Amino acid sequence: MSEAKPVILKIGGSVITDKNGELAARTEVINRLAEETKKAGVKNLIVLHGGGSFGHPTAQKYGIKEGLRDDAQKIGFAETHHVMTVLNGLVMDALVWHDIPAFSVAPSCCVVTENGRIKSFEDTAVKTLLKMNFVPVLYGDAVFDEKLGFTVLSGDQLVAYLAKKLGASKIVIGVDTDGLYDTDPKVEKNAKLYTHLTLGELEKVKSKLGGSTVADVTGGMLGKISELASAVEHGIPVTMVNAAKLNRVYKALMGEKVEGTVIEKA
Amino acid sequence: MSEAKPVILKIGGSVITDKNGELAARTEVINRLAEETKKAGVKNLIVLHGGGSFGHPTAQKYGIKEGLRDDAQKIGFAETHHVMTVLNGLVMDALVWHDIPAFSVAPSCCVVTENGRIKSFEDTAVKTLLKMNFVPVLYGDAVFDEKLGFTVLSGDQLVAYLAKKLGASKIVIGVDTDGLYDTDPKVEKNAKLYTHLTLGELEKVKSKLGGSTVADVTGGMLGKISELASAVEHGIPVTMVNAAKLNRVYKALMGEKVEGTVIEKA
Repeated sequence: MSEAKPVILKIGGSVITDKNGELAARTEVINRLAEETKKAGVKNLIVLHGGGSFGHPTAQKYGIKEGLRDDAQKIGFAETHHVMTVLNGLVMDALVWHDIPAFSVAPSCCVVTENGRIKSFEDTAVKTLLKMNFVPVLYGDAVFDEKLGFTVLSGDQLVAYLAKKLGASKIVIGVDTDGLYDTDPKVEKNAKLYTHLTLGELEKVKSKLGGSTVADVTGGMLGKISELASAVEHGIPVTMVNAAKLNRVYKALMGEKVEGTVIEKA
Repeated sequence: MSEAKPVILKIGGSVITDKNGELAARTEVINRLAEETKKAGVKNLIVLHGGGSFGHPTAQKYGIKEGLRDDAQKIGFAETHHVMTVLNGLVMDALVWHDIPAFSVAPSCCVVTENGRIKSFEDTAVKTLLKMNFVPVLYGDAVFDEKLGFTVLSGDQLVAYLAKKLGASKIVIGVDTDGLYDTDPKVEKNAKLYTHLTLGELEKVKSKLGGSTVADVTGGMLGKISELASAVEHGIPVTMVNAAKLNRVYKALMGEKVEGTVIEKA
């Protein structure tokens, strides 16, 4: 790797897909985010994305997260990975089209979990890509699990893991709300946006956060925050912005002032 | 792995794409081959495919095989891998649709070459897939090279490598001719088909074989035969059949009598 520490950008599945649809990609959003990423031109960038209406419904239908209990699930495991590679293909299309030397790394090929937690990560590909100034692109995926046979690995767990392992300078999380609220802003009109939280404050507001409103086999907002907190503990700040709105991701990548939630250790 | 030794099926890029086109997939052929594969129901199957009009033109345009000499090639390296994942996606679609628990393993994530030859292969994913009765699917890909920076890894080199490493019982190669001829059957009307060759006989006919007629950055028929010969040396028989013709691949997988070329050690 060159001197600059990696910056990790994670785009939620609810941003790049319509979670109420089925295999419903928002290609115009994917395209705009590729444009913002190109414009920011961040060095040592790693991009991750979630599964939205590609990975989640299939994983849920076959109970992939809970592990292998029945041979009939096997086609579901294969299908979950496959639909994720299809969504990833659309993301890659947009990035490469915008002249970003993006290179996909399938988590199922290099991660093994144990009871749903990353146990080993064969990181040669990601490290080589960074060293050569490529942009590694990963995603939430169906992966092998030493205890469960297989499971679903969330993009958020992977973000926190990679951030710690590679010593990231910051994490930008693109979601479909303006940041972290004290209650679900899609349900509660008076939901209050947190603009800055320390890790201590985050712990206190965690109890207020419920699961997400639609199918998300990887735990919704509460799961997201719990994963990211472990990176913040290691001193890596997290900026959560609305990736559905123009230039929020761009500004967050550039370190400019932007509407959203910043979570820092202290 | 269960007791049965792996069987490796490689489908050439000239079969599943139109090599004279650009990104021109033959989805009806891909679909039929998935059907034949399902019907054969071979245990411990590994599927590989070539790049055809997806991988080759892009790799050639940017000189990817020759390695990194210029930063402008980087987008070409990214693009070569990307278009291969697109072709692979079409193959995966067909396999999963036919209820085959197929799971793609991107070679770029687990292979590192040195001057174009496989130096290391992180085989956890492939071995775990076989053990759990999945069908690993790999393909010719743009990969990292310790000396060249990057290069193109042919599906054929990967076939021979995996066959030797995993102790395959046989290799079935699907091409767009009826087998191995003494001269190019697409040019010479009187080309003679070899139905059976020992390794010794193969060496003698090798000198007669030229490169393929259209763009193939991985060496055409001569390159293919040279790669496969190393597996035959290890006692693994190769059956080369016309995958463009109905049931040839099916019969070869089943071990039935089929028009084609069988290459054996002695």
